[in-house]
Amino acid sequence: MTELDLPMIVTEIAAELAAETERGQVADYIPELARVNPGQFGLALALPDGRVIAAGDTEVPFSIQSVSKVFTLALALGRHGDRVWERVGREPSGDPFNSIVQLEYEKGRPRNPFINAGAIAVTDALLSSYAPREALGEILRFLQYLAGDDDIAIDPAVARSEQETGFRNVALANFMRGYGVLSGEPAKVLGVYFHHCAIAMSVRQLARAGRFLAFDGRLSPHGPRAVSSRMARQINALMLTCGHYDGSGEFAFRVGLPGKSGVGGGILAVAPGQASIGCWSPGLNAVGNSLLASRALERLAERTGWSVFTAR
Amino acid sequence: MTELDLPMIVTEIAAELAAETERGQVADYIPELARVNPGQFGLALALPDGRVIAAGDTEVPFSIQSVSKVFTLALALGRHGDRVWERVGREPSGDPFNSIVQLEYEKGRPRNPFINAGAIAVTDALLSSYAPREALGEILRFLQYLAGDDDIAIDPAVARSEQETGFRNVALANFMRGYGVLSGEPAKVLGVYFHHCAIAMSVRQLARAGRFLAFDGRLSPHGPRAVSSRMARQINALMLTCGHYDGSGEFAFRVGLPGKSGVGGGILAVAPGQASIGCWSPGLNAVGNSLLASRALERLAERTGWSVFTAR
Amino acid sequence: MTELDLPMIVTEIAAELAAETERGQVADYIPELARVNPGQFGLALALPDGRVIAAGDTEVPFSIQSVSKVFTLALALGRHGDRVWERVGREPSGDPFNSIVQLEYEKGRPRNPFINAGAIAVTDALLSSYAPREALGEILRFLQYLAGDDDIAIDPAVARSEQETGFRNVALANFMRGYGVLSGEPAKVLGVYFHHCAIAMSVRQLARAGRFLAFDGRLSPHGPRAVSSRMARQINALMLTCGHYDGSGEFAFRVGLPGKSGVGGGILAVAPGQASIGCWSPGLNAVGNSLLASRALERLAERTGWSVFTAR
Amino acid sequence: MTELDLPMIVTEIAAELAAETERGQVADYIPELARVNPGQFGLALALPDGRVIAAGDTEVPFSIQSVSKVFTLALALGRHGDRVWERVGREPSGDPFNSIVQLEYEKGRPRNPFINAGAIAVTDALLSSYAPREALGEILRFLQYLAGDDDIAIDPAVARSEQETGFRNVALANFMRGYGVLSGEPAKVLGVYFHHCAIAMSVRQLARAGRFLAFDGRLSPHGPRAVSSRMARQINALMLTCGHYDGSGEFAFRVGLPGKSGVGGGILAVAPGQASIGCWSPGLNAVGNSLLASRALERLAERTGWSVFTAR
Repeated sequence: MTELDLPMIVTEIAAELAAETERGQVADYIPELARVNPGQFGLALALPDGRVIAAGDTEVPFSIQSVSKVFTLALALGRHGDRVWERVGREPSGDPFNSIVQLEYEKGRPRNPFINAGAIAVTDALLSSYAPREALGEILRFLQYLAGDDDIAIDPAVARSEQETGFRNVALANFMRGYGVLSGEPAKVLGVYFHHCAIAMSVRQLARAGRFLAFDGRLSPHGPRAVSSRMARQINALMLTCGHYDGSGEFAFRVGLPGKSGVGGGILAVAPGQASIGCWSPGLNAVGNSLLASRALERLAERTGWSVFTAR
Repeated sequence: MTELDLPMIVTEIAAELAAETERGQVADYIPELARVNPGQFGLALALPDGRVIAAGDTEVPFSIQSVSKVFTLALALGRHGDRVWERVGREPSGDPFNSIVQLEYEKGRPRNPFINAGAIAVTDALLSSYAPREALGEILRFLQYLAGDDDIAIDPAVARSEQETGFRNVALANFMRGYGVLSGEPAKVLGVYFHHCAIAMSVRQLARAGRFLAFDGRLSPHGPRAVSSRMARQINALMLTCGHYDGSGEFAFRVGLPGKSGVGGGILAVAPGQASIGCWSPGLNAVGNSLLASRALERLAERTGWSVFTAR
Repeated sequence: MTELDLPMIVTEIAAELAAETERGQVADYIPELARVNPGQFGLALALPDGRVIAAGDTEVPFSIQSVSKVFTLALALGRHGDRVWERVGREPSGDPFNSIVQLEYEKGRPRNPFINAGAIAVTDALLSSYAPREALGEILRFLQYLAGDDDIAIDPAVARSEQETGFRNVALANFMRGYGVLSGEPAKVLGVYFHHCAIAMSVRQLARAGRFLAFDGRLSPHGPRAVSSRMARQINALMLTCGHYDGSGEFAFRVGLPGKSGVGGGILAVAPGQASIGCWSPGLNAVGNSLLASRALERLAERTGWSVFTAR
Repeated sequence: MTELDLPMIVTEIAAELAAETERGQVADYIPELARVNPGQFGLALALPDGRVIAAGDTEVPFSIQSVSKVFTLALALGRHGDRVWERVGREPSGDPFNSIVQLEYEKGRPRNPFINAGAIAVTDALLSSYAPREALGEILRFLQYLAGDDDIAIDPAVARSEQETGFRNVALANFMRGYGVLSGEPAKVLGVYFHHCAIAMSVRQLARAGRFLAFDGRLSPHGPRAVSSRMARQINALMLTCGHYDGSGEFAFRVGLPGKSGVGGGILAVAPGQASIGCWSPGLNAVGNSLLASRALERLAERTGWSVFTAR
């Protein structure tokens, strides 16, 4: 394969998408998300050599929402190992992110850690070793370490709004508590959950925070280890099969890279050995994933040839 | 990475699994499958250089059953292109392989081409260009070409038994016909479907037949092209997200390679750029995938480091 | 209670409904039903003293469709007694009449004899004592006896159309056969089922045919016995809880009488001790019951005070 | 019909059931219910002439649980009329009493007022006119008026236990709040709900409290009116189609009378014009209704001939 001109590819994609007029629907269940300008778009690649190649709105912090589930899962697995899997499965759900139906059929055990119920169960696991405030501190410090950037914080207004309107998540947590899947008090678990979903990051920070997944658990190919290579591989597998809710199969089919999306419009994608990718545009498609970030990643995969499904 | 001693790895795995006493449950819905000796195990790797490394029961033909869905999908995509996706989706189902529930909620459109309903819809697509007998001929010739082996055939006793007992598949086909998803006559479509599921192959033949998925659409890295590289990538993506029914997430998590299983106990797995892998042992686990073939592939992935989720 | 002027009530209701402009949607899945004139309406009451009070289109034969399920159930119970309940339940389904979802969750055992799957299972029970042609003869003779009218017959064009388009019923039958709930060959069972659904009757005939349900199993309060009083009571209970598919609760709430509807627009209702009621108008409401016949029965119940839920 | 010897019938049934050894399973989700002696049984009939005929444990207060839903529905309908039906349906659910699945498919609108979600929605309706404490006062006073007995109270220990363990009900309430079906604060609504389920009554009190349903809305055939006759008729219809959860069809089939059961083992049944019936035995059958109270009511219906489905 000839040398890729990544800066040009990234710049071109950002320019193309800036010109798109159909930009999807910004999440509107809380005012803080509803008033985000849908015209924004950012793309950043963290490379093996430490460089970050970025274009567009690269420094604007956005609400990472469900993308945070990747990091809390890594933290919980690091702390509790495979015991985490006692309370949550590893199968795609075939249902929207906040469906309670499957939860009932499967006796309160969420299908995977990336649907809301599953992420709440993972948060509950974290609270078996930490008090709520400590847990949030640990999550933030872990993210700051992974990104090599102390300037990552929770947006308190978003956290408050989530808490005030998150009835369905309250339902999920109590439902799991009723089945004994959750061991903590639902209100406490949800407090931590709503706060880690309210973390704000820029695409540059997100790309850097995801490097451990691109480099077999290390922050760079020969850099310091954040998690075991086995765990990095497993989290990538979960992202590929379950990272985009009801659109996971489609993302795997079109983009061919592990990824995790959030309703704030962010997506973290991973090209193993090549790059950790942060992408963001606030408008969502019909299944709740960023319309333009999905499209950008599809073009990036096409133009770079990056796909976990090719011979490389 | 140091040079792998593949022959030794393959031999060791075959020896280990031959010694297993817990071998799962042989499919028993038709007598032809029920009486297969559960003590059998075979593993074969087709490599870029044309070699096949194999151990165990490498030459015994077994009923490939649902593994055939990979090949009929490739044939239908080659013939009809993306129009195939008008009648079948690309999302994991989160349900057993023959569930009719999802089909009702989604108005007769199967979630993906690897659940029974989806494969029946793909067969129906094939029948828009071929008469039933011709379609079966095309499927067989395609497989013989891919494997470079003319000695691949349909087991007529299996096909007959399937036809006599396949009430649930008759239900699925008629259900889809009622929704207008199927355009052919259900009985004709099912005739072809039951016959291609009854194709018998050895693990050696299966490994060779899957080479086009390991080598970006070619029979070897620089060999003749069987399908486009884009199609090979897409089929691999579908195998990873949907290839093991309700156990697809688990297979991705543990093995990390695209794969497709059948109730005859066969699994075709793909390590892009490295090998096409055929594995077989008749006993099934709780979700209907070969217990020992899954375990063998997990060990093979561990010992070779092959995984689509690592930096390589 | 003062003497009711039933002829005037019936005449008034017929006149009111003839004037309705919103008449619902005629079933259109087969041409024979689609071309029925939606402007028609008929109402007939068979009274304890043998009189029939009727108004509107009282002599026009219409396709009774699912109303036939009441009569085949009575025949099967008479022939096989409580063994019929081994293959079908007695609970409302909470789902549309042709749903396959519940059937899967409940392992092929239909919830009640008035959803399609349940009626197919009842027909299968009949076929354990009769050949298909005989079974149809028995059903017709039973209806002719109940109605005291030999001029009741199957509409062969309707039966043929049902057979040609009834893919979903083919699916249901094969699905149940797959679970072993059906013991006969699906095609044969469906042949009989499609034919008894294609029986044509006028509201006058229907009212007379339902007398055994109004008079504790007899054709009049002191007349000949058709079924045991216990069976009449039980069939009434099933009609009340399950007789209008997804609209059964609503019919019980508004009308307060056992009833069974069909997609041909007919409803058989029962005011125990007072009257057997046949009503018909071809246009259907959103859940598949006759819009105007439901409305007529609600008015009749209001003006007569007939309801199983009052002190009388 | 010959004069019934009701005292003898009631005494015989009580004696027969006292001798039963298979007594079902006492509800054990809270300690207060778990430690109730399963050997108890009571039966009481409130007759048109004002007499109460009773046998067995006629004066022991038990937790009426879901039977309370009948009374809160009557109160809410009296206060808000048909506006209550804007938030809750009138169809049998075909699912267990606390299923959340149907709630999701139907966008948070409960199928009927007798499943938990529906009763919570009815309680929410009551809170649009009353503060929580007032609402409970109204409910209690209504019951005391209906029964003509001031000695009816809430068991505070039961209410407290329900509140501590009712995670699933918290889930249901928040789920409906998320859909906007509930307008009040979930915790407040549930506070009232848990308390009215914790009302304790004897079978004698229950029989008297249900008289308004047996006598067309009056406390006796010519006595004071509690609700309109239309409302009494409608509540009876709902009890018949939805009063026994997943066993509603079976109760209608076997007993043929409107009834409402609770997990405390109580059942209120209504023979319109004949009697209001309170029955109680703590052991439950597989679908959560009192095993022996169901059996007792079946025998009572057989021996008296009371059934809404006969000519009378």
